[in-house]
Amino acid sequence: MQFASDNSGPVHPKVMEALARANTGYAPSYGADPLMDTVREHVREVFEAPQAAVYLVATGTTANALSLASLCQPWQTIFCTDVAHIHEDECGAPEFYTSGAKLTLVPSVQGIMAADDLRAVIAATQLGGVHGVQRGPVSITQGTERGTAYTRDQIGALCDVARSYGLPVHLDGARFANALVALECSPAEITWKAGIDAVSFGGTKNGLMGVEAVVLFDPALAWEFELRRKRAGHLFSKHRYLSAQMAAYLEDGLWLDMATRANAACAALAAGLEHVDQVALHHAPVINTLYGDWPRHIHQRLHEAGAVYHVTEGVLTGDDPEERLSARLVCDWSAAPEATAEFLALFDGR
Amino acid sequence: MQFASDNSGPVHPKVMEALARANTGYAPSYGADPLMDTVREHVREVFEAPQAAVYLVATGTTANALSLASLCQPWQTIFCTDVAHIHEDECGAPEFYTSGAKLTLVPSVQGIMAADDLRAVIAATQLGGVHGVQRGPVSITQGTERGTAYTRDQIGALCDVARSYGLPVHLDGARFANALVALECSPAEITWKAGIDAVSFGGTKNGLMGVEAVVLFDPALAWEFELRRKRAGHLFSKHRYLSAQMAAYLEDGLWLDMATRANAACAALAAGLEHVDQVALHHAPVINTLYGDWPRHIHQRLHEAGAVYHVTEGVLTGDDPEERLSARLVCDWSAAPEATAEFLALFDGR
Amino acid sequence: MQFASDNSGPVHPKVMEALARANTGYAPSYGADPLMDTVREHVREVFEAPQAAVYLVATGTTANALSLASLCQPWQTIFCTDVAHIHEDECGAPEFYTSGAKLTLVPSVQGIMAADDLRAVIAATQLGGVHGVQRGPVSITQGTERGTAYTRDQIGALCDVARSYGLPVHLDGARFANALVALECSPAEITWKAGIDAVSFGGTKNGLMGVEAVVLFDPALAWEFELRRKRAGHLFSKHRYLSAQMAAYLEDGLWLDMATRANAACAALAAGLEHVDQVALHHAPVINTLYGDWPRHIHQRLHEAGAVYHVTEGVLTGDDPEERLSARLVCDWSAAPEATAEFLALFDGR
Amino acid sequence: MQFASDNSGPVHPKVMEALARANTGYAPSYGADPLMDTVREHVREVFEAPQAAVYLVATGTTANALSLASLCQPWQTIFCTDVAHIHEDECGAPEFYTSGAKLTLVPSVQGIMAADDLRAVIAATQLGGVHGVQRGPVSITQGTERGTAYTRDQIGALCDVARSYGLPVHLDGARFANALVALECSPAEITWKAGIDAVSFGGTKNGLMGVEAVVLFDPALAWEFELRRKRAGHLFSKHRYLSAQMAAYLEDGLWLDMATRANAACAALAAGLEHVDQVALHHAPVINTLYGDWPRHIHQRLHEAGAVYHVTEGVLTGDDPEERLSARLVCDWSAAPEATAEFLALFDGR
Repeated sequence: MQFASDNSGPVHPKVMEALARANTGYAPSYGADPLMDTVREHVREVFEAPQAAVYLVATGTTANALSLASLCQPWQTIFCTDVAHIHEDECGAPEFYTSGAKLTLVPSVQGIMAADDLRAVIAATQLGGVHGVQRGPVSITQGTERGTAYTRDQIGALCDVARSYGLPVHLDGARFANALVALECSPAEITWKAGIDAVSFGGTKNGLMGVEAVVLFDPALAWEFELRRKRAGHLFSKHRYLSAQMAAYLEDGLWLDMATRANAACAALAAGLEHVDQVALHHAPVINTLYGDWPRHIHQRLHEAGAVYHVTEGVLTGDDPEERLSARLVCDWSAAPEATAEFLALFDGR
Repeated sequence: MQFASDNSGPVHPKVMEALARANTGYAPSYGADPLMDTVREHVREVFEAPQAAVYLVATGTTANALSLASLCQPWQTIFCTDVAHIHEDECGAPEFYTSGAKLTLVPSVQGIMAADDLRAVIAATQLGGVHGVQRGPVSITQGTERGTAYTRDQIGALCDVARSYGLPVHLDGARFANALVALECSPAEITWKAGIDAVSFGGTKNGLMGVEAVVLFDPALAWEFELRRKRAGHLFSKHRYLSAQMAAYLEDGLWLDMATRANAACAALAAGLEHVDQVALHHAPVINTLYGDWPRHIHQRLHEAGAVYHVTEGVLTGDDPEERLSARLVCDWSAAPEATAEFLALFDGR
Repeated sequence: MQFASDNSGPVHPKVMEALARANTGYAPSYGADPLMDTVREHVREVFEAPQAAVYLVATGTTANALSLASLCQPWQTIFCTDVAHIHEDECGAPEFYTSGAKLTLVPSVQGIMAADDLRAVIAATQLGGVHGVQRGPVSITQGTERGTAYTRDQIGALCDVARSYGLPVHLDGARFANALVALECSPAEITWKAGIDAVSFGGTKNGLMGVEAVVLFDPALAWEFELRRKRAGHLFSKHRYLSAQMAAYLEDGLWLDMATRANAACAALAAGLEHVDQVALHHAPVINTLYGDWPRHIHQRLHEAGAVYHVTEGVLTGDDPEERLSARLVCDWSAAPEATAEFLALFDGR
Repeated sequence: MQFASDNSGPVHPKVMEALARANTGYAPSYGADPLMDTVREHVREVFEAPQAAVYLVATGTTANALSLASLCQPWQTIFCTDVAHIHEDECGAPEFYTSGAKLTLVPSVQGIMAADDLRAVIAATQLGGVHGVQRGPVSITQGTERGTAYTRDQIGALCDVARSYGLPVHLDGARFANALVALECSPAEITWKAGIDAVSFGGTKNGLMGVEAVVLFDPALAWEFELRRKRAGHLFSKHRYLSAQMAAYLEDGLWLDMATRANAACAALAAGLEHVDQVALHHAPVINTLYGDWPRHIHQRLHEAGAVYHVTEGVLTGDDPEERLSARLVCDWSAAPEATAEFLALFDGR
């Protein structure tokens, strides 16, 4: 009963096999491995972007921070939601990598930023000429930190607002695959065709050991990005093992298969919880993450029985057994139906 | 005939097996995996330092830059040799991580910094009160960038100089294992017992996929280090795969076996080259790296035959076939005697 | 009719005379001028803080940013109001000087931060362990950016909250003198006795040419501050001309006289505006700054007649002549009653 | 007998008068004062550069650091001499302002960098592709830190080297006026016509209270410079008092008069010292700074008699009265012939 994070699940066997295959003899280091050429071409195909610059790093925070640093000057501010991972969960990595840019928070509903809200916040920024920070990139997360996903139209509307101010747009795609399979559109349609300039294309949360691709649709940013990556210690000497993971990820649609499995597990979980009287789900299941709330005493029973997940609002130990506490449940590609069933059974087992 | 770098070689099979073993079910993320507890204890045992803070990162540049940032204020300068990796090969990572500290270069002979030179350079720094940068940490590399290793006494003398000025000492141990097996002493003797405060304990160049341990002998630095690591994107979510590598590395002395093999391969190479009239070796073999020079036409013949290594001074293509060009040859743990023999045969095959 | 800013007014003649007196022969540079010794002692007397470290810089942004950098780590966040000068009007100086810290905004009413709001915002920060930025200093502005002033009790309550979390408190005192004369208490009572750790003690807005004192009640911060100041280019070689200004400022209570005059001019302005039907003042006059709103057509008439002030919400040119636009009126020490009378007459002259 | 620094002398009376004249009524703040328009035009005329962006700051370190930050990326290195003010006397300001660039030192003779040495050092940099820092701006000082001045041809040759690598050139002109009057050429000839991109045009060491102009010959750098200046706290609210100083400086050639006087005083000092047997001057007098050496016992006698200057090598107190110690003597615009005579007489008074 593991619903803590898609970060705590295992690596897909095909990825392990790819690592083993890559472990033969010598290979050029620092990204000059031939496998990276394959990966670069495959990522470009996936995004229908033959000119895109493609780089691999090992963590999502790195992919986000390096991308934003390439799009943002130190005296600018990044527009993101109040629940954005870059705001809440990266210990100030964007500020560090941009040499001190700000983050300006845009309200969100279920993790979704509305175009009108973005426009209003941008308009209210940079009114003081040289005295205030300047407008910088917009960063959105797809799938969001609240278990939802932007539609193509929503992304398009946000990018239109950004473009009307001449601002670039970054997409934190730590769960891009989960969002993609939940929408009926192509990677290109919800990225550069909609107006996105840079994508953190996640792999780690979706069955890899630790690889994210950064896709820069403007290849003019490439060399600066390479210098920033090296300077930050994120250029791997034995790069082939990053390449191997990403190559396996993209081969035969493994990335989509894994995302589909994770989303399906989450949908099954939601379907079960919908029938539990005391559970209030906060949204319909879209990707692989589900938010809801139920009474403390049920949380306690679940934890005692070995269920692992985050209580996001409220404290597990408390006086009132009926107080409702919010929870986040995340399913990874390896989520087993048995675990879901066991988890759901605990709700009924009163 | 691969002598370009110990970064281009493969991962040891036992490490691959450890990764496979670690790939079972769920594990706590971000360094809370139980395997990390084992690693921490094992590293502490290796260094006889039961209180040391131990962290894993994926690259040597990161280990160095994060360690130095923990020891250095932005208005200080780091003392290192003119051939130091942190000066020449990290694209300014120490400057980035320290928020703009300087590096002050100390002369070196064969990569070795002499205590008297260090003392003279430190003494000549910070004479201008508030106007100049202040004295900061000393950073030395063991084994050095020139294929040599500091003796225990040499390290002690350098640490004594640093201590006399109240300065901490960092050790870049990307090839620590290679140096250790070349000296007759314990890890503790050439680190904290000699006066070292922080060690980048390398694994990547010595058979791992991409793991370095940072060992901070003063545990008071621990929390700041953790925040710096996170903020820089170097805290891995699926941390167990770093832990697994380091656990395998330390188990049954694998790290020492691999270093011994690499050093032995290098010694065999040197032994062969010593008998080649036209080759001048720059130093006796100590670790797994060898510098020497020979005429251009031999370099050309070697490259045409498929030998891979760096020409460090001079240009492979040039008019004078007899001009002597310097080369660096590096052997990794997997170096095959056949490759060495094939390589040496090319010298005789005129 | 100049109400744009206390930055646009002249320097007091006594300050000009002091500069002339200081301009005799040679003097030690970089802060070693004997006049600085006098200033240091006088500031310590004013604040009843015989151990305080006292430094002079030329701008308020510098005083704030250097002070905050001395109190804040790069991975921390500074708590300030949503209308704080450090957030809105310094183009990211705190972020630059702290090497990338965040600012976390606390709601404000009339520029005043409530202790309960501060507690709630602090409590909601740093819940994610290493993943989020850490709690850093609290920064409040006295007098506030909205023309009000904290009472001694309000400051005490805010400092109590900060202290309960172990956080230092910085006070942006660009208009400290204006607040002080509006309250019935001593400088010590509303600073270190209440729990403030560092004060930007403003002079520039109150009749000086360009000098602010930084007062650090913990002298252990002194040397680091000096290095930060030098490194930022804010250590003046001909420092005696900063000292001379501050010496004149403190002599015979000139600073209090000037603030009293500015506040009185503002009170007279408010008294006049209270009787204008179409004017709604946003607060009772406290310091030298007044906020209010009135219809666009009156704004237009005032501007045409040569009144100079900032319209802070709304646009001077617009369709609806009755739309109410907000304005900020600031009186400096040199404000002439005639100008106020002329300004007020324009309201009646319909 | 004040020869410590041109920073310890007084402000010229005409500058004080200009400050008094500027102190009338209200003026727009933050550089919008009409006087700044005059200054901008005058500086452009002086440099024959009608498009140049011109800004005022208060210290030389700021002028240098902000200019370099506008010309340099964080992953680049600045080429300067081993005695450059930006290297030795700014406590790492260039590193701070550039977000962590390096300084690469070029050898110098009497403070002068030779074009061949610059070329050799540039050529030896950036050989490691992404692994090393990249080539950045060249920065030279005119007049130099060693009392000399570059000829027009020397500057041209250095700029040619920089241009051949596509690198911009910054000129630290803290003593630009002193160098200019020592050479027979126009400001344009030894700046942009020779290939200089940005000039720190000093005023503080040459009779102002604290103003340096930054002249950017490429106006495309203007807006970024303004943001950097604001963000660093170097945009003065009461900017008119900077403008007034610079306006007086340029009016009727006051700046050249003052530099001529300072240089003449230095030449007189040198002429006197040349006849003292025990004095060895290190160079012919060119600007207002002189280096030489003589025995300790004479230094001691001079200091006891009240002479103020820096002993730059060696220690005033020491055993051997005949040991030769080096000194720096600096004359400012106000240097009195009587002081020089008194100083010289002390040498004869054995």
